[in-house]
Amino acid sequence: MKQAIVVRTDLGMGKGKLAAQAAHASLSAAEASQHRKGGWYDAWKEGGQAKIVLKVGSESELLEVFQKARAAGLPASLIEDRGLTQLEPGTATCAGVGPAPDADVDAITGKLKLL
Amino acid sequence: MKQAIVVRTDLGMGKGKLAAQAAHASLSAAEASQHRKGGWYDAWKEGGQAKIVLKVGSESELLEVFQKARAAGLPASLIEDRGLTQLEPGTATCAGVGPAPDADVDAITGKLKLL
Repeated sequence: MKQAIVVRTDLGMGKGKLAAQAAHASLSAAEASQHRKGGWYDAWKEGGQAKIVLKVGSESELLEVFQKARAAGLPASLIEDRGLTQLEPGTATCAGVGPAPDADVDAITGKLKLL
Repeated sequence: MKQAIVVRTDLGMGKGKLAAQAAHASLSAAEASQHRKGGWYDAWKEGGQAKIVLKVGSESELLEVFQKARAAGLPASLIEDRGLTQLEPGTATCAGVGPAPDADVDAITGKLKLL
């Protein structure tokens, strides 16, 4: 089991902003997984909650990842910034995919590079 | 309600590593909060799961934050890296404090700077 956190690099987010948005994506996708049957969330937690952080260069790439994950029936989250600080309100910043079986996550995010 | 994620800056973690560790801290502290009475977790989620990411410059400062949070009865997590990639196994990388009421979190982390 693993979770992929996919982050946009074209927004110029600072480290703190990026970490907060990634945590938001992680938590929301984990919660989506927790609400499903199949025990993916518990297996992931017990296995050390493996996470990989990947990058995309545009909003359209990010949305594509999110939509593919949803279409494949995987727990997924799309995070939009509330625009209180660095970004315009509603800017999609990152997405979470999984926790889900490694092969299912790789089928969606396998071609993306590590951040 | 808010959650503070406290990150060490002296380890030279890359952005992806940092985001993954911060997400780990966030999720673990959120889960600790979820298991408590008082509705802090639900109130935090409904309020947009506010997070701030703060920095410390050493392991001892990080441990101090974590221990103070625990001593104050706040949900808290301390994340140790498994050492598969950039760091020695067992290296404490970051901590999560809350979700908890703003004033309680500020009492522990209020003097730390934003990452």
